[in-house]
Amino acid sequence: MTRLRKFYGWGFQDEELSAAEEAAWLGNFHRLFSVDRFEERHVPSLAEISLPTPRVTPPPALEAICTVEPYERALHSFGKSYPDTVHGLHGNYAAAPDIVAYPRTGNEVAGVIDWAGGVPLSIIPFGGGSSVVGGVNPVRRHGAKGAVSLDLSRMNRVIEVDPTSRAARMEGGIFGPALEAELRPHGLTLRHFPQSFEHSTLGGWIATRSGGHYATLRTHIDDFVESVRVVTPRGALETRRLPASGAGPNPAGLFIGSEGTLGVITEAWLRLTPRPRHRCGTAVWFPDFFQAAAAVRALLQAGLTPANCRILDPEEVRNTGSGDGSAALMVLGFEGWDHPLESLFSRALALAADHGGRAAHAEPGQGAAEKWRTAFIRMPYARERMVPRAIISDTFETAITWERFESFHAAVTRATLDAIREVTGRPGQITCRVTHAYPDGPAPYFSFHALGRHGALIEQWQAIKNAASDALIAAGGTITHHHAVGRDHRPWYDKERPDLFAAALGAAKSALDPGSLFNPGVLIDP
Amino acid sequence: MTRLRKFYGWGFQDEELSAAEEAAWLGNFHRLFSVDRFEERHVPSLAEISLPTPRVTPPPALEAICTVEPYERALHSFGKSYPDTVHGLHGNYAAAPDIVAYPRTGNEVAGVIDWAGGVPLSIIPFGGGSSVVGGVNPVRRHGAKGAVSLDLSRMNRVIEVDPTSRAARMEGGIFGPALEAELRPHGLTLRHFPQSFEHSTLGGWIATRSGGHYATLRTHIDDFVESVRVVTPRGALETRRLPASGAGPNPAGLFIGSEGTLGVITEAWLRLTPRPRHRCGTAVWFPDFFQAAAAVRALLQAGLTPANCRILDPEEVRNTGSGDGSAALMVLGFEGWDHPLESLFSRALALAADHGGRAAHAEPGQGAAEKWRTAFIRMPYARERMVPRAIISDTFETAITWERFESFHAAVTRATLDAIREVTGRPGQITCRVTHAYPDGPAPYFSFHALGRHGALIEQWQAIKNAASDALIAAGGTITHHHAVGRDHRPWYDKERPDLFAAALGAAKSALDPGSLFNPGVLIDP
Repeated sequence: MTRLRKFYGWGFQDEELSAAEEAAWLGNFHRLFSVDRFEERHVPSLAEISLPTPRVTPPPALEAICTVEPYERALHSFGKSYPDTVHGLHGNYAAAPDIVAYPRTGNEVAGVIDWAGGVPLSIIPFGGGSSVVGGVNPVRRHGAKGAVSLDLSRMNRVIEVDPTSRAARMEGGIFGPALEAELRPHGLTLRHFPQSFEHSTLGGWIATRSGGHYATLRTHIDDFVESVRVVTPRGALETRRLPASGAGPNPAGLFIGSEGTLGVITEAWLRLTPRPRHRCGTAVWFPDFFQAAAAVRALLQAGLTPANCRILDPEEVRNTGSGDGSAALMVLGFEGWDHPLESLFSRALALAADHGGRAAHAEPGQGAAEKWRTAFIRMPYARERMVPRAIISDTFETAITWERFESFHAAVTRATLDAIREVTGRPGQITCRVTHAYPDGPAPYFSFHALGRHGALIEQWQAIKNAASDALIAAGGTITHHHAVGRDHRPWYDKERPDLFAAALGAAKSALDPGSLFNPGVLIDP
Repeated sequence: MTRLRKFYGWGFQDEELSAAEEAAWLGNFHRLFSVDRFEERHVPSLAEISLPTPRVTPPPALEAICTVEPYERALHSFGKSYPDTVHGLHGNYAAAPDIVAYPRTGNEVAGVIDWAGGVPLSIIPFGGGSSVVGGVNPVRRHGAKGAVSLDLSRMNRVIEVDPTSRAARMEGGIFGPALEAELRPHGLTLRHFPQSFEHSTLGGWIATRSGGHYATLRTHIDDFVESVRVVTPRGALETRRLPASGAGPNPAGLFIGSEGTLGVITEAWLRLTPRPRHRCGTAVWFPDFFQAAAAVRALLQAGLTPANCRILDPEEVRNTGSGDGSAALMVLGFEGWDHPLESLFSRALALAADHGGRAAHAEPGQGAAEKWRTAFIRMPYARERMVPRAIISDTFETAITWERFESFHAAVTRATLDAIREVTGRPGQITCRVTHAYPDGPAPYFSFHALGRHGALIEQWQAIKNAASDALIAAGGTITHHHAVGRDHRPWYDKERPDLFAAALGAAKSALDPGSLFNPGVLIDP
């Protein structure tokens, strides 16, 4: 019944890249790096891993919800970032949490916090563990005796559905598929599908300001949060369920994006919609990426808000098997539940045509859009197979206003390619898509690929990451549009956010978490 | 050239209710209170007012931007709330600011803050002074030697327009009409038209989370703020210009709704749209208010987001001269700039018809919708003419989720009417409209009318306000959807916002305004 998640790699233990998928990935990389074979290292099994002895034992009252099983400690040692995966390859579990706690109620969360405050222990909130930015690594703050990974996955209920206002009260630890399954009988959906959907939780989405499937205007989970309940070291708080308010700064806004630094999001009311009944969409081909981007801008600035309006540059098209790499692709789709959307779709196609777009003939189930969608869902499974071959393959994402987009793209691309060449001694690749778009700018999503060297993968990755992030911040972008800050993005977040905002946020943290128990190193150092 | 604003009453000195408008208002009140005449008191002129001697004098460096002219001090003594107007009637200007400062640059703002910190003086940011919640009253905090009203209206430039990303950088002190006039040559508009549009400023809108003309989904200024620049006692900060970000809690979100407690919003980048070219709309009549509300819910939950979707109960219809009071009215309108909206409009009319709505025949320029619009813009001018007649007439607004709307409306209405009868000894009236609406709930806007007694108006008003606000908060609403908290709403805001959020916000204030210089009594007491 219970499908276990991998402690190394993405997703469930019984799910991985097929041989054909792996061959496709490797085929790309053989061509890209002009090499015949990759030196593949062995990934240690659980039996081969040595975990440090836990430095603490839970009090009797918490024994029932705490575990030190090796699988659990290994699973909670890392998120799913590139360096996380390299550490896994090296069997480097020195930073494993001392304890993994699985609270079932808000009171049990408070119990763990009380215990952790007394010892003291650092507390690392853990939803699905899908962080790609070092957000769930069990880092101890200076002076802490250990770290407890606080896994919310047993707080996974849909508590109440309000069909009149179309909202539901749900616990923070519910995973995407369970959430949607429980809403389905009500004819409702949250319609928030991050790439990690199967392996991430509602509380994690709120804590990290996740970006969903809906690709334009109202893309982040922020817009769908009606209220939050948070357990902090100072106690629990709950914001009012309101459709809108003008009473002071939005109180939920302090916790949306707080990344587990202020406490744990144990419950939330989320705004829902009926399940879509009207859909129309197609693939649209463009001679080049910036013409496609101009079309995206035209659509958004025309007031159109398609559910999907993603664009891929030609290299990304080829890498994902969506096309031969001779053109840029727009995956365009409208969806709704009340009225037909064909007239808006037609207008979108006309605007796309104005910018050189050519709609594909309908190929249901096998068109470029469908191929891209499959590749998109399968992408995260590649990392665990590429890292053992010393392939450095990662993504980063940002947002920028339209008037700077081309120069921004050029600066980031050049800096990343230069760093790859300098660090690895051979050319690599960077590709770009636009995953989300707004009237005033796009959210570009970059993928880069380099051939690294076993033993130096993290240093090499870090050097490339530094160059890309430096360029991105210097050119005015945000260090993350929806992946979050975690620990990996801290140096650039520190440049992006105003220092006085950090002072205010640090003061707010000290008010709620005076012992600095929560998620040290993430967002702020109070 | 310069039209002066009234220090008593609304708007410009050369603008007030016409005789016909005043007769209409009074006609309603004669009927409502069953009285033949009102005892009208004299409103003191500037020459008749005595102002306290300023307790401080500005340093030489600030002399050029500071004034102690009686008109200026009187103008900055109050906002436009009901009790403000009663104080004006009484000639009670004891709380006048010692100094009014008109900085022209961010550096001059910092200069005033430095001076105020040294004395110390409380600093009261002042945009258009249109607050109806006690947000701009020059209250001194304990220990302060005086209060300076910091009027931003000389920081009124549109600094830069970016036509590509459709955004503009503007100073905080620009008034609505000037802002739109400067954007018009670019074919762009902010399209944010609060009722106070002529007499309020961009910075004030951001500081108070104002609600604009656009009546559904994206109603608050929040959605249009791309970045803010704020001068605090600790220095200036500026958030990045970004279409969206997932990097920590939204930094601008701390200042949007901060109501001048953290510093002064001196500049902001705002998202714009082209000026509307496509418009369709009509008045729709419903047998009763809750059928109209059900239609609003149906429209919003169908994914329709009309620019206007206001509903008025029958009494409000009669009071505003929009109809005879036998039916509820929906003012429905779509507008856009790219593509025709008739199909969405038709769908909206069909949904309205499903709920008993009957669209009016087109009567361009003289229909019910147009009559309502005129009454809406003119409403604020009534107060200065009614207060001298001891009429207690005020509004309050809130938001609530749909499933509670009817019981909420009943509780608030009953509590208010009971209080009016108890306090004034005779029946009064409460009417309701819905000014803004969301898929998960409406923003109801109540107007109440009572016949008070000269000499006791503020106490009577306060008793009614208390009853209404207590009921509203007990029934789950917010103390304000877009009027802000100010000082008048503090007791209920303190119940609405979680205590731990107040602790966090207070800590943030202490980090930015360690001397508690800014706007004492508003939002928080750090």
